[in-house]
Amino acid sequence: EHASGGASMSGHSRGGTDAASKGTVRMKNINRFSNFVKSGMEGYILKPVKLSTQPAERHEIILSNEGPQWAPITQLYNCSVDKPKKESKMKGLKSYIAYSLTSSLSGIQVSRRYKHFDWLHERLTEKYILTPIPPLPEKQVSGRYEEDLIEHRKQILQLWVNKLCRHPVLSQSDVWIHFLTCTDEKQWKIGKRKSEKDEYTGGNFFQSITIPGQPLDTAEVERHVETFSRMTRSLDDSVRGLFDRANETHKRHIGPYKASFQKMASAFEALGHSFELDQSPHNQSITQAIKQTSTVYRTIGDMHEQQPKKDLEPLLDALYAYKGMLSTVPDIVHVHKSALSKLKENEKLSAEGKIPQAEAEAVRMRVDTTSYAMLAEINHFSKERVADFKVTMVDYLRQQVHFYEQIAAQLQGALIQFENV
Amino acid sequence: EHASGGASMSGHSRGGTDAASKGTVRMKNINRFSNFVKSGMEGYILKPVKLSTQPAERHEIILSNEGPQWAPITQLYNCSVDKPKKESKMKGLKSYIAYSLTSSLSGIQVSRRYKHFDWLHERLTEKYILTPIPPLPEKQVSGRYEEDLIEHRKQILQLWVNKLCRHPVLSQSDVWIHFLTCTDEKQWKIGKRKSEKDEYTGGNFFQSITIPGQPLDTAEVERHVETFSRMTRSLDDSVRGLFDRANETHKRHIGPYKASFQKMASAFEALGHSFELDQSPHNQSITQAIKQTSTVYRTIGDMHEQQPKKDLEPLLDALYAYKGMLSTVPDIVHVHKSALSKLKENEKLSAEGKIPQAEAEAVRMRVDTTSYAMLAEINHFSKERVADFKVTMVDYLRQQVHFYEQIAAQLQGALIQFENV
Repeated sequence: EHASGGASMSGHSRGGTDAASKGTVRMKNINRFSNFVKSGMEGYILKPVKLSTQPAERHEIILSNEGPQWAPITQLYNCSVDKPKKESKMKGLKSYIAYSLTSSLSGIQVSRRYKHFDWLHERLTEKYILTPIPPLPEKQVSGRYEEDLIEHRKQILQLWVNKLCRHPVLSQSDVWIHFLTCTDEKQWKIGKRKSEKDEYTGGNFFQSITIPGQPLDTAEVERHVETFSRMTRSLDDSVRGLFDRANETHKRHIGPYKASFQKMASAFEALGHSFELDQSPHNQSITQAIKQTSTVYRTIGDMHEQQPKKDLEPLLDALYAYKGMLSTVPDIVHVHKSALSKLKENEKLSAEGKIPQAEAEAVRMRVDTTSYAMLAEINHFSKERVADFKVTMVDYLRQQVHFYEQIAAQLQGALIQFENV
Repeated sequence: EHASGGASMSGHSRGGTDAASKGTVRMKNINRFSNFVKSGMEGYILKPVKLSTQPAERHEIILSNEGPQWAPITQLYNCSVDKPKKESKMKGLKSYIAYSLTSSLSGIQVSRRYKHFDWLHERLTEKYILTPIPPLPEKQVSGRYEEDLIEHRKQILQLWVNKLCRHPVLSQSDVWIHFLTCTDEKQWKIGKRKSEKDEYTGGNFFQSITIPGQPLDTAEVERHVETFSRMTRSLDDSVRGLFDRANETHKRHIGPYKASFQKMASAFEALGHSFELDQSPHNQSITQAIKQTSTVYRTIGDMHEQQPKKDLEPLLDALYAYKGMLSTVPDIVHVHKSALSKLKENEKLSAEGKIPQAEAEAVRMRVDTTSYAMLAEINHFSKERVADFKVTMVDYLRQQVHFYEQIAAQLQGALIQFENV
C-alpha cells in the first residue's frame, strides 16, 4: 500500500486539539511527527513563509450547484500505458522493464520504469496532502509468472494514470506533465531536481490556489467532512470485503469450478467409451452426442479458467485502486481536522483579544482555503466513485452475462446433438 | 439394489463348465446353489417337466434386420404413478403410503403400497430370469424429509413402470397386468396366489415362448453375448462414475455454489450500504443498481439450490435405474453361459453316441430358445439404452441451458441498471 505520509491512525488522538496557550508560537502543535506538522500545513496556517519562486501551477476552486469544486479541466486528455518491454543499459549489464506512456494531448511517447512511477507517486503524495493519491501496483517480485505479473502491473498503472488524468489538480500537475512529456535525458534530470525542490508542496501548496470570496460555515464544513469520513470508512470495509470475496471466487473458478466441469467431462467421456462398445448403427449418433457433451464440459471447464482475466481481475484491479485511495483518507481527514482545530483556537484567542484582528482573519482565510480544497476533493471523489463503479460494474456484469450465455450456448450445442439422435 | 436371484459373482467360477460326465443325470450342475440350477434353467434344458397348466401368457421371438427380437408390442400403453397419499386401515391403527397407478389402456386406477411393488419385483425377477428387471427405489426410512422422500420414490416408481410398459414381455406379463388393473380385494388375493404358483417361472418360462425355426450358430451367439457382457461391464462402471459425479455436483450446488453467490450478494449489499451514506442526488441510481445486484446474486444463489431438482435429480434417477439393471446382467449372462455349456457337453456326448440323436436335438432346441431370448433381450436393452439416454440427456441439457440462460438474464437485469446510471 502507498499510504500518504507517515502519521499512523494511532497518532491521531495525540495531534491537534490540546494546543499550546500563548499566541502564534503557543498554537504550534505538540506532536512534531504528525503529518499536520511535517507536511507544513501547520506552518502554512499559522504563519506562511514568503516563497522565493512563483508557483509552476495555479489552481482555482469555484462554487457549483453541488458546492465547492476544482475548476473543471479545460482540455480533457488521456494517457495510454503500452505493453511493457525489457530494456537494458550499461551495455546489457542491467536490464529493466520500461512502460511507454502516450498522452492524447501531445502525442509524445515516453518510456518510464517502475522506480520513476514510484518517485512520481512520492512527489504527488508530498505535494497534494488533501488529495487521495491512487496506489501504484505492489513492487514486483520476479518469478515464474513474470509475464503475467508485468501485464497485470501494466493494467494497474493504466488505472493509475487514468485517475491522474481525470483529477482537475493532478492532471495539471507540473511534475506529472514533466513525467508524461519529457523525452530528453538532461531535461528530465533538471525537471526532477526542480520538482524535488518545489516550494509549493504540502502546506505551501495552498499558497498557489484561489478560493471563492465567500467565507465557509465551520459547522457545515465539519458535517460534510464527517459524512465523508463515515462513508469512506464504510466503503473501505465493503470494498475490502468485495475484494476478498472476488479474490476467493477467482481461486474457485480456476480451481474447483474448473475441476468440477473437467470431472463431468471425464464421466461423459467414459460413458461415451462404454457406448462405443456397441457397434449397432442405431447407437452411433448417441455415442457421438455423448462424446460431444464431454468436449463441451471440458470447454466450459477451460472457460472457467479463462474467465477471471475478463471479469474478476479487472474488478479486483478497480477495487485495489479504491482500497489504496481509501487508506489515505483517514490521514487526509485528520490533517484537515487539525486545521479546523487551529481555526477554533484562533477564534478563541481572537475573542480574548490575544491576537490581532487582522492576523485572526488571515488565519481564517487560510483554514478556509484548506476547507475549500477538502470540500472540492470530497466532491471530486464522490463523482469519481460513481463514475468508476459504474464503469467497473458495467464491464464486470457484461462479461458475466457473456460468460453464462456462452456456457448456455455450449450446452445448447450438445443438446442439439441429442435432439437429433 | 434388487439383483436377480442369489448367485454371487464369486459363484460364477464354480458353476457350469466342469459338469458331470455321464448322460443326462451326469450333466447336472454340481453347484446346487447356482442360479442356473435354482431357477430351473438346468432342469428345463436337460429334461423339462410336463406342466399341469396352460401358460397365462405366450411370447414370440421374431427375426428382424437387427437380429432376433421379441415380437413388438401390438398396443403400446403407459402407466402414470400419481401423487402418493397416506391411507390407513384397521380404523387408523395402521397407516401407510399408497401410490395410485393408472394405465392408459384400461383407464383403471389402482392403489398399491411399496410392499406390493416389492412383491411384484420378486415375481418378475423369478419368472423372467434372462430379463434385466429395473430396480425399485430403496426401502423408505421415514424421517425429517419424508415429503421429499415420498415424492422422490414416486419418481423412481414412475421410471420403473415406464420400463415395464416398454418391454415386450414384461408389458404383457400376467402378474403385472393383474397388479395394474385389479381393483377387487378378493380377486387381487386370488391373482396373487395364482402368480406365486405360476409354473411358467424361471427355466419353465421358456416353455411358453416361440422362436424362429432357424437354428443358431453357437459361436456367433457367444460373440454377441460376450460383446454385450463387455459393454455392460463398461457401462456399469461409467454409469456409476457419472452417478457419483452428478451426486457430488448436486451437493456442491446446494452447498458451496449457493454459498458463494450468497457471499457475493452480501458483499454487494455491504457496498450498497456504504454508497447509501452519500446522500448526493448523483449517487442515488448507482446505489440502487448495487442493491439490485445484491438481490440478483442472492436469487442466483437460490437458483443453485433449486436447480438440481430440475436437472441433476432426474439424471440421478435415470442412472439409478441403469445401475440397478446393469447389476443384474452378470447373473443373466452367467445363466445363459451355463446353458451354452450344457449344449457343448450335449454335442460332445451326442458325437460319442452317448445320448440319443432325438434327445440331443431337443436339448439344442431348448438351448437355442434361451439363446434367442438372450439375443432378444440384448437387442431390447440396446435400443432402450439409446432411447433412455437420449431422453435423459435432452431433459438434462435443456434444463442446464435454461439454468445458465436464466443466470445470464438475471445478471443482464443488474447490468441494465448500471448502464442507466
